[in-house]
Amino acid sequence: MVSSHRRAVATEGQGDAHDITAQVADAIGESGLSAGLATIFVVGSTAALTTIEFEPGAVADFNGLLDRLAPRAAEYIHHQRWGDDNGSSHVRAALVGPSLTIPFVDGALTLGTWQQITLIELDTRPRMREIVVQLVGEFPRK
Amino acid sequence: MVSSHRRAVATEGQGDAHDITAQVADAIGESGLSAGLATIFVVGSTAALTTIEFEPGAVADFNGLLDRLAPRAAEYIHHQRWGDDNGSSHVRAALVGPSLTIPFVDGALTLGTWQQITLIELDTRPRMREIVVQLVGEFPRK
Amino acid sequence: MVSSHRRAVATEGQGDAHDITAQVADAIGESGLSAGLATIFVVGSTAALTTIEFEPGAVADFNGLLDRLAPRAAEYIHHQRWGDDNGSSHVRAALVGPSLTIPFVDGALTLGTWQQITLIELDTRPRMREIVVQLVGEFPRK
Repeated sequence: MVSSHRRAVATEGQGDAHDITAQVADAIGESGLSAGLATIFVVGSTAALTTIEFEPGAVADFNGLLDRLAPRAAEYIHHQRWGDDNGSSHVRAALVGPSLTIPFVDGALTLGTWQQITLIELDTRPRMREIVVQLVGEFPRK
Repeated sequence: MVSSHRRAVATEGQGDAHDITAQVADAIGESGLSAGLATIFVVGSTAALTTIEFEPGAVADFNGLLDRLAPRAAEYIHHQRWGDDNGSSHVRAALVGPSLTIPFVDGALTLGTWQQITLIELDTRPRMREIVVQLVGEFPRK
Repeated sequence: MVSSHRRAVATEGQGDAHDITAQVADAIGESGLSAGLATIFVVGSTAALTTIEFEPGAVADFNGLLDRLAPRAAEYIHHQRWGDDNGSSHVRAALVGPSLTIPFVDGALTLGTWQQITLIELDTRPRMREIVVQLVGEFPRK
């Protein structure tokens, strides 16, 4: 059984992080599925998904790492080509990745207590992000 | 329903990137499946998969990031052990990852317009790469 | 068909890597499934999963990369907030990721010969790690 869900998230530009765990859990609840795989996918090439302990310090530390790896103000070939200013966004997104797959059992994600599904905006401007939550699994056994 | 597909891609050594989106879309078409999960997996430990805006500038910028993170000419313990010269390949591949899972709905991948599935060769020599496209999903409802 | 398996792995602190390929293969064997997707997920926000050629040199090189990217002794905002000392663990885990999805066909993972499923402990102390192996697939066709 496949169940597809889409969610929109308004973001405020590079480094803006959103805990979307509740939205994924809600999709599982709506589907009525008991066990399976939840794939969370962000549409677009300048945002990414990961899990982190969603508290402001850890999120800021992760953004600090990305800033060091791919500074926004550095020179990027992508800028020359398109007149864009978001080369740092593209390389950060390709490194972190657009997709997460998380098991669910008895209708619940198998996350740890301090482990949240996190959308991180990497583009240099606010965006309306589309998240696809795709569930493949089975209904409760009677 | 599960549908397995294999594709071969000839690469030209470290940094050579290939847009394999069409091959994945073709596999979905061949399967006849309507909705589900497409997992794309590269066999081997010196290549990786991600999504990026597949234009030469962004791809070169991503390779530039990987070059800075794990320079080819640096010293690697792996070299001492095996006489290999691809320590940079192994650590880059472990960082970016061998697998992507992307939803498909109504027979189409949920990618953004400027978001392509990209195989990146990280080994220091040309390779013939094997890609597994594994689809799990359902047929159209009548 | 969905088949859920849990495995515990005792780790010895930051950088301790474990080849868990056999445990994942065993789960597939126990399930009786022939083809599908195996998602391996580590519960918690200070460990990660990837594939690598599991020999001590390549593993040490990968740890060396993570040490350079996010040194354990650097200052992290997470430390100020919680009195923790594992800021480096959180950012490394968010970068590498908690999840891997690998196809299996004819009951076997589609890994390369030198490509092992690897749990890497990133926390600063020994942990008992819980791994979820979630299989979605089909039984052999008669």
